[in-house]
Amino acid sequence: MPTKTEKWRRSLSLALRTIGAVSSPHTSPHPRSLPFTRRELHCGRGIWRGFLSLRKPWWGTDTFGSDIRGFGTESTMLKRNPKFSTLNDDDIRYFKELLGEKNVVQDEDALAAVNTDWMHKYRGSSKLMLQPRNANEVSLILKYCNSRCLAVVPQGGNTGLVGGSVPVFDEVIVSLGAMNNIISFDKVSGILVCEAGCILESLVNFLDQQGFIMPLDLGAKGSCQIGGNVSTNAGGLRLLLYGSLHGNVLGLETVLATGDVLDMLGTLRKDNTGYDLKHLFIGSEGSLGIVTKVSILTPPKLPSVNVAFLACHDYSSCQKLLFEAKLKLGEILSAFEFLDEQAMDLALNHLEGVRNPLPPSLHNFYVLIETTGSHETYDKEKLEAFLVYSMELGLISDGVVAQDLQQASSVWRIREGIPEALMKAGAVYKYDLSIPVEKMYDLVDEMRNRLGSSARVVGYGHLGDGNLHLNISCPQYDDKVFTQIEPFVYEWTSKNRGSISAEHGVGLMKAEKIFYSKSPGAVQLMASIKNLLDPNGILNPYKVLPRSS
Amino acid sequence: MPTKTEKWRRSLSLALRTIGAVSSPHTSPHPRSLPFTRRELHCGRGIWRGFLSLRKPWWGTDTFGSDIRGFGTESTMLKRNPKFSTLNDDDIRYFKELLGEKNVVQDEDALAAVNTDWMHKYRGSSKLMLQPRNANEVSLILKYCNSRCLAVVPQGGNTGLVGGSVPVFDEVIVSLGAMNNIISFDKVSGILVCEAGCILESLVNFLDQQGFIMPLDLGAKGSCQIGGNVSTNAGGLRLLLYGSLHGNVLGLETVLATGDVLDMLGTLRKDNTGYDLKHLFIGSEGSLGIVTKVSILTPPKLPSVNVAFLACHDYSSCQKLLFEAKLKLGEILSAFEFLDEQAMDLALNHLEGVRNPLPPSLHNFYVLIETTGSHETYDKEKLEAFLVYSMELGLISDGVVAQDLQQASSVWRIREGIPEALMKAGAVYKYDLSIPVEKMYDLVDEMRNRLGSSARVVGYGHLGDGNLHLNISCPQYDDKVFTQIEPFVYEWTSKNRGSISAEHGVGLMKAEKIFYSKSPGAVQLMASIKNLLDPNGILNPYKVLPRSS
Repeated sequence: MPTKTEKWRRSLSLALRTIGAVSSPHTSPHPRSLPFTRRELHCGRGIWRGFLSLRKPWWGTDTFGSDIRGFGTESTMLKRNPKFSTLNDDDIRYFKELLGEKNVVQDEDALAAVNTDWMHKYRGSSKLMLQPRNANEVSLILKYCNSRCLAVVPQGGNTGLVGGSVPVFDEVIVSLGAMNNIISFDKVSGILVCEAGCILESLVNFLDQQGFIMPLDLGAKGSCQIGGNVSTNAGGLRLLLYGSLHGNVLGLETVLATGDVLDMLGTLRKDNTGYDLKHLFIGSEGSLGIVTKVSILTPPKLPSVNVAFLACHDYSSCQKLLFEAKLKLGEILSAFEFLDEQAMDLALNHLEGVRNPLPPSLHNFYVLIETTGSHETYDKEKLEAFLVYSMELGLISDGVVAQDLQQASSVWRIREGIPEALMKAGAVYKYDLSIPVEKMYDLVDEMRNRLGSSARVVGYGHLGDGNLHLNISCPQYDDKVFTQIEPFVYEWTSKNRGSISAEHGVGLMKAEKIFYSKSPGAVQLMASIKNLLDPNGILNPYKVLPRSS
Repeated sequence: MPTKTEKWRRSLSLALRTIGAVSSPHTSPHPRSLPFTRRELHCGRGIWRGFLSLRKPWWGTDTFGSDIRGFGTESTMLKRNPKFSTLNDDDIRYFKELLGEKNVVQDEDALAAVNTDWMHKYRGSSKLMLQPRNANEVSLILKYCNSRCLAVVPQGGNTGLVGGSVPVFDEVIVSLGAMNNIISFDKVSGILVCEAGCILESLVNFLDQQGFIMPLDLGAKGSCQIGGNVSTNAGGLRLLLYGSLHGNVLGLETVLATGDVLDMLGTLRKDNTGYDLKHLFIGSEGSLGIVTKVSILTPPKLPSVNVAFLACHDYSSCQKLLFEAKLKLGEILSAFEFLDEQAMDLALNHLEGVRNPLPPSLHNFYVLIETTGSHETYDKEKLEAFLVYSMELGLISDGVVAQDLQQASSVWRIREGIPEALMKAGAVYKYDLSIPVEKMYDLVDEMRNRLGSSARVVGYGHLGDGNLHLNISCPQYDDKVFTQIEPFVYEWTSKNRGSISAEHGVGLMKAEKIFYSKSPGAVQLMASIKNLLDPNGILNPYKVLPRSS
């Protein structure tokens, strides 16, 4: 009778024959891109219309009037800050003189699009969008707005998920899209300098020609802009391998609320001269300054990519597998994603064309492993050896390795399709949490115990980064269920030194919840820094920091 | 007749036979450690005594009296800030009550050691060293000092090179050495949390047992402390592979000048909740707060290390070789160091037992390449293929691959011995610069043209990080030579958007020179932040920022 390992080798060998290993020199598979881009969204929105209709409307100008907004199921009331001026004809005249007629947008249809976030969850009522073409124009805009106490919301690709990139009331929208030049690229060092309005995908395409890649990759790359990525400290799909933007961004040019242009646009890997101010702006969501230029370290594009999809019996095995993968795959491990059985069920039941590549069996957890390296044969052998070893340790109960781009994409589709499947399944309460890996799944288990049969609790996410996407699915939104979830989920996360926003940011959505993740002293210091850099508070008001600060 | 490539293959094969490839599973080679540690220095200082006697004394209490210091060959006069109080008996009584007698050090001999930096370049006249055992004690010390306006200098291992860790006048020394506990280590995520006073080497040894390494490695690791590493944003020898501390440090606990303990001690790879304040403290050289705890991401220890030593005809070939190495060695490239012929000459003439592993020939540049990976055979094959390829491209004129630890060490000894050789050769003007790689060597050439035969100009450094160590060697210090060097070297660096301090920091040495690397607006903002966090300016005064700010 064959041993478990022999069976695995046969299964792996079969998988390799039938599904095989994907490796395409100098071709970017991007199997992880969502099947739509912002541009498609602009053209049709068809794919989203269906999902959006299932969402509970979270805002209501009609209910509260134009000076008050109710956001979120917790009905947080927000009042327009009366210290901010209201636009007048002189303002419009000034901006037209400065930027030219066509860059001063007052058209209602055009404004409707930029007043609304892409999930249609937040909507402001701005009457003006400005389209500066360089940092000097941004500077003059902010200097003017600051002197007039006009509130401003900087906007990049408007793909954020926490209401950070749209006005809350009538803030002037400063759109960075026209500032989209690549300034320089040094092939020896891999350092790219560009304007903030460059669309991530354009940079990816530019670098592809040079044999480099961006150190971050997002589903929204067809629309999001590098300035927005930096301002939100976007995480994305390459963080496990290349680290965060705090490590990759080498320099910034930002315009402060006063209009002062702050030149921190270094192009050096090492520079220990004074406080490293750029980090203040990375992840500050446009509330401390508007990023106008970015200098970023880009890695060479490596030609070999492999994807494996594995089943584990329990969460503890997933954890141990991560540990072993870091050790055995080491420098080529580029993604380690996990999903539980409930997440897989949803994907199988609600996504068209999605199938489980593993034979039907009782698997409790699934893990997607991706490797990225410089040598096709070595990488494949390393992955195979790792899989056999993990099987011998009893960490994996089954698994396949994708053979080509399409198979890799279909495996990524399972993982990436879960949010879509959740939205198709009914109402969903979504949480983007960072939790120490060893405790991460305890929250899912505890939530299941709390909710019993009243809701379906789903756990998946970037296990390699300690990032859990906790989703609670119900037939419809239900206040009774909601009170069982919040504030418990935040309290639990806080108690376990987690973060209530792993990668999406705070924006408007979580400004009042920041104390669950940050100490009062830290929030107080943030508020002091905000006050130092933006004494009138004109930059992206109502966001990031709580009103009490 | 054999082609160039065939000759290279033979040479490589010979090198591999005679010198071979080094690879030692689960053994840390540390071939790059300097041949001494701070502890040895404490015992003897013999090795350095000889070098130090060649140095021009840069400070002089005798000349200027205890309230004025003259630092540097440019004779910058510095006056004690009269707003700071002078210690009195009540102060001593308070500290003894708080910390206990033995942690309040007034002994003159003990103070002499901590008043002087390890290069004997800077010396203060502090009458008091405090040795807190926890953050609460640090907090109470600073609260008291702030209320009394007593200036403070935080001190870790006192291994800094820019006078940042010693008093300038009579500042109270707060030594972190007693706070040296490891708090936690998570083997799944590789996240280590420890107190600031942990010696880097202790952490390395602790992690070694767990199969992990620190993401930074320094020659001073036997003495330097992690709190000091973080406070100076230490670069070191692993930056090329693992990036800077801004990417690896996940959280900090710091005590502000007011005594407030700022808890930013996250243990998460992703946390986008508000401004990422910890980055303000990374590299601020103890002038914004005292780091008391550190949370850091540590990589798994990979078992395979290879070292190659290569000769290039010109600097352009070194650049191209770096480009190809990034592409072909990709994920396993862990060091790319270079030295010019003059640097090699110095090493050969002044370092005992050092020999050129390459046959005598006219080589203008040498490159040291190190790879670190998870698979011995693959890594060796990759390196060999890369070397053959580079030879075919004409980028390498000769080369060897080390076979064992000893050979790897002897090759690293050439590169690391250069500072020692320079000091043995006579007087030396030293500059630690970051310069875009493509322009880096132009400065060396220009300096040679300026100085002609009056001095020997030597260029070497971390080419992979764009970090040039420019050294100008003369028989003795000579003001005529010096005026040819400065301010030219800083002006040139500034004009080419370089940094006047790549990895050593600003400290006291370069506080007045910061404008060469940072814009006035940036320095002004730094000063505002300093004022916000430390309104009385008690933390590490006279350093980092210029007096004018």
